Amino acid sequence: MSQTYSPSLALSAIRIVLCTTTHPGNIGAAARAMKTMGVSDLALVTPRFFPHEEANTRATSAVDILERAQVFDSLEAALKGCHFVVGLTARRRDLSHDMVSLRESAQRAVREINFTFSSEHLHSVYPKAAFVFGTEMSGLSNSELDVCNLLCNIPTDPEFGSLNLGSAVQVTCYELRQAFLGDLPIQPYAQPLAAHEDVEALFVHLERALSITQFLNPKNPKKLMERMRRMLTRTRLEQEEVSMLRGLLKSFERTIAPRAKRADNRERNEEE
Amino acid sequence: MSQTYSPSLALSAIRIVLCTTTHPGNIGAAARAMKTMGVSDLALVTPRFFPHEEANTRATSAVDILERAQVFDSLEAALKGCHFVVGLTARRRDLSHDMVSLRESAQRAVREINFTFSSEHLHSVYPKAAFVFGTEMSGLSNSELDVCNLLCNIPTDPEFGSLNLGSAVQVTCYELRQAFLGDLPIQPYAQPLAAHEDVEALFVHLERALSITQFLNPKNPKKLMERMRRMLTRTRLEQEEVSMLRGLLKSFERTIAPRAKRADNRERNEEE
Repeated sequence: MSQTYSPSLALSAIRIVLCTTTHPGNIGAAARAMKTMGVSDLALVTPRFFPHEEANTRATSAVDILERAQVFDSLEAALKGCHFVVGLTARRRDLSHDMVSLRESAQRAVREINFTFSSEHLHSVYPKAAFVFGTEMSGLSNSELDVCNLLCNIPTDPEFGSLNLGSAVQVTCYELRQAFLGDLPIQPYAQPLAAHEDVEALFVHLERALSITQFLNPKNPKKLMERMRRMLTRTRLEQEEVSMLRGLLKSFERTIAPRAKRADNRERNEEE
Repeated sequence: MSQTYSPSLALSAIRIVLCTTTHPGNIGAAARAMKTMGVSDLALVTPRFFPHEEANTRATSAVDILERAQVFDSLEAALKGCHFVVGLTARRRDLSHDMVSLRESAQRAVREINFTFSSEHLHSVYPKAAFVFGTEMSGLSNSELDVCNLLCNIPTDPEFGSLNLGSAVQVTCYELRQAFLGDLPIQPYAQPLAAHEDVEALFVHLERALSITQFLNPKNPKKLMERMRRMLTRTRLEQEEVSMLRGLLKSFERTIAPRAKRADNRERNEEE
């Protein structure tokens, strides 16, 4: 009865929880950061000002996330229905909790979500993982940290460690998107690549042409051709680029040596 | 003569290049984003307003990066001394360049920097990798894209793809820090973990105690102990937690059965 968790559901399993946010602009920045990465479930625990004009302004076109945001009077209430809770903290103090990097916590969240979803007796439940952010100046309190399953630290320069709230949510949602949807290929090659034999035929043509121009030292032809080969195989040549280079060689041959022109004509006749 | 590139030098090999930035606040946000991740070399190509009060305000304590930023009148000038150039672009059009994800481009930058540095004939040169960001509204122009070795796209929700400049620089510098310095362990375990034999002794003690309370079915003792074992091995118990649990068991034994109390006393005498 185990099911596979659908990728399209994946990011809807994430809830971003902001605790006692002081500046409404930061709530808007967090909403925008979430939306760029496809995360949409925002929970606010006792925000100082919400709703607020400044939150809407900073959210730009992510205002819908603010409109659907739920406001709670305790962290406990905001975590109802969550199966895995990660607390973000910059503090490195004597904690009984494990503290892991952001990347590891995102990967753990994927595993926990998949595991919960595929559990036989829970397959009708949509699992949720919460990422909890503390108030701007002091972060999560000890009692807020205590309800988390895992504590997580965003690696920063230790000499300048403070990410603002919007940036912390941005980097977190980016890592979650990467962890849930993977490093998807961005774009196929724009143009078809040349086949091996076409590139080899180019080298044969090149060697012939360079012999005619005397650029190739007949006593040691190998070294130059090795260099040419190294240069032209490092980049993956496209079909059209090989055609272009062969056309260029032919044009040189025609111009420089009547002998080459005749050879070229012969070749073209053979091709036709 | 090959040398290993020092990790402390690693992030100084990164130059962030902002082309024709319209809003000075974005330059400040970019400087702050860089500083949080330990990146410090900022190059500005024809910024509309710079220096500017708003840039300083948004940079907060990263003003030193703005003070050391160099201003150039062309991208070409800003790239002087760079060995590897990555262009950030959201466009997915018909490009002859490879387009890779941000993570892959950061990893490529590490390889290129290490390779350049370890090259025998270049070992006195400090290599640089540039990450180039276009103007806010339209991104990098075709001629700006043409000078890049690699094009890179930050994976975002295709339905809401626009990261603002500060966020794009933040996520990029985060990935660069991860790629150059790795996913460093954040914090060792706060408390010493229990050794295997201590946990096993706990299970022996638990089984004895549960036999006394009759909670353990003597006809099928195995199943309950398997469940207990599964529950207690899933978390990595600390030394002190094992001591605590054994103390708890002893207190039960003492209370419930004089027989257990005597056994406990014997054990304690043996220990002393």
